[in-house]
Amino acid sequence: MNRESKLIARITATVRRAGVPTGRTGLRLGIGDDAALFAPRPGCEVVVSTDFFNEGTHFFAKLQPAESVGYKSIARAVSDLSAMGAVSGYFLISLALPESKTGIWFDDYFRGVGEAAKKSRMFLIGGDLAKSKRVSISVTAIGFVPLGKAVRRSGARPGDLIYVSGRLGGARLGLEILRKGYRSAAGASQLLAPEFYPPIRLALAKWILSERMASAMMDISDGLSIDLSRLCEASRVGARIEAERIPRAKVSAAWRRRLRLNSVASLEYALHGGDDYELLFTVRPHQKHKLRAVHQGVPLTRIGTITREAGVVLSDADGHLTPLEAKGWDHFGGRD
Amino acid sequence: MNRESKLIARITATVRRAGVPTGRTGLRLGIGDDAALFAPRPGCEVVVSTDFFNEGTHFFAKLQPAESVGYKSIARAVSDLSAMGAVSGYFLISLALPESKTGIWFDDYFRGVGEAAKKSRMFLIGGDLAKSKRVSISVTAIGFVPLGKAVRRSGARPGDLIYVSGRLGGARLGLEILRKGYRSAAGASQLLAPEFYPPIRLALAKWILSERMASAMMDISDGLSIDLSRLCEASRVGARIEAERIPRAKVSAAWRRRLRLNSVASLEYALHGGDDYELLFTVRPHQKHKLRAVHQGVPLTRIGTITREAGVVLSDADGHLTPLEAKGWDHFGGRD
Repeated sequence: MNRESKLIARITATVRRAGVPTGRTGLRLGIGDDAALFAPRPGCEVVVSTDFFNEGTHFFAKLQPAESVGYKSIARAVSDLSAMGAVSGYFLISLALPESKTGIWFDDYFRGVGEAAKKSRMFLIGGDLAKSKRVSISVTAIGFVPLGKAVRRSGARPGDLIYVSGRLGGARLGLEILRKGYRSAAGASQLLAPEFYPPIRLALAKWILSERMASAMMDISDGLSIDLSRLCEASRVGARIEAERIPRAKVSAAWRRRLRLNSVASLEYALHGGDDYELLFTVRPHQKHKLRAVHQGVPLTRIGTITREAGVVLSDADGHLTPLEAKGWDHFGGRD
Repeated sequence: MNRESKLIARITATVRRAGVPTGRTGLRLGIGDDAALFAPRPGCEVVVSTDFFNEGTHFFAKLQPAESVGYKSIARAVSDLSAMGAVSGYFLISLALPESKTGIWFDDYFRGVGEAAKKSRMFLIGGDLAKSKRVSISVTAIGFVPLGKAVRRSGARPGDLIYVSGRLGGARLGLEILRKGYRSAAGASQLLAPEFYPPIRLALAKWILSERMASAMMDISDGLSIDLSRLCEASRVGARIEAERIPRAKVSAAWRRRLRLNSVASLEYALHGGDDYELLFTVRPHQKHKLRAVHQGVPLTRIGTITREAGVVLSDADGHLTPLEAKGWDHFGGRD
């Protein structure tokens, strides 16, 4: 038994111990053969997305618990499925890591993977393993959506209302707490949750799809400003959003003081922070009545309107309009 | 336009210039949205596999042309589809690379990708991009196989005949030429081809599937000895192979002298070298007549027989049997 076989045996055992789901009706062949096999669902298209989650770029191994690395690596891949209104199906993990992380780190990583997989009802069906100096994770997520029903970025029209789920800027705030060394401070873990354990919005997306409410949809992974500009580009429209309406992460007065977090900074985090994994979607005005302010505990907030003129503008409390620069997470440059 | 958008625009342009196929009937949505969408093929299961191709582990950027890195990153992912008897469909590329490789290297990489994609009739539908010190590539390949018809590793029975396609050890020989600094020597490029541009055996696999010849099949990616032992484990059988029958890479006398390549070394390369991407398959004796010695220019060689006793044994020219150690490529340890 060579080292790889040993490590695969270890993965199998770890995955079982961590409760990562690996079997399912429709799955014909999982881990262990050359490739995985699954039966498509009748009347459905297959949705597939792949994402990196790399040490030094997407996370810092010294600041982030392995369990969270596991959880987030899955949650962000699943987020792309939510963004299309798909139901989740299967996932594959390719994991490159140093020898030093094949012990406790490895077990904790897969415990986090298992948590996220259970929450998103995803089944692990394959992957790859390699050695490297720094951890590099590539997750492929596979889902299903009824034929022709996927919600794309390109369907927004002038006059559509713009909504976001949840609250924005929480992950960026968590990053700030990590950077300033407050990780172990009282109350920090709650504020770190959006950064360590991002939301999974599959159920919300499924509801939005089933009610046919959204004319366009995507997930906010890189930051509202940049992601909204992408939605607008794909739809060949513009947008006007209202600063006062943007739902920001809740922070106590004590933590605001400690972090010197004024309203300008919290708006910046909400606009450009990234890593929120909330849904951004547009709704035709006559469909508005279908929406609730809160769906299964998740706030749904109208933040603005789609316009005919290209570009995204931000309206302040006094109604002053300023062009909104598409900042936020740049995969190739790193976080702002 | 941030740097990522610029790079995506560059990928789009590069991919177009390099002739990487990106559109196809059945593909509903490709690069540019949150996820890709494709319609499943009626009566087919979906086959999916993901593989790393990382600098320092799977290739050495200084020794291997970028075009070959691109070609091989696709060819090895496709090889997993061939191994199941699947027809190819789509692929996604996640690419982490340093800034220094976003210029000529990048263009050359995608030219190689395009070549392999055209040969395998695969269509690029998505991926991810990140920055890193060393190149890390993760390719997900998606194919289709008629319901219940995929050829697995687990179907071999005692008495089945063992076959391999092509010749083995050529990639290992190519690596030796690189290591010894003969890359630019006259005649080297031909010997480097198996290492730089591995074979794509989709057509052969399709024929094997259509004739229902194989009881078990896999690709030889890590080396005959280790891959055959995996096939045997999955099928709960053993194997006896004959050293004299194993088809070895052809090398001229001059190159054999130069590389000090005696018959022991060339057998070692063929048994344990890895990176061959040939097909290894088993055939029931009564199906033997369906096989040809050469199919569309690819030799098909019977190398041994499946046995009831566990383990793989090697028979030499005199009929002496020795247990064959499962050596070869260890993804976590590196090449022998």
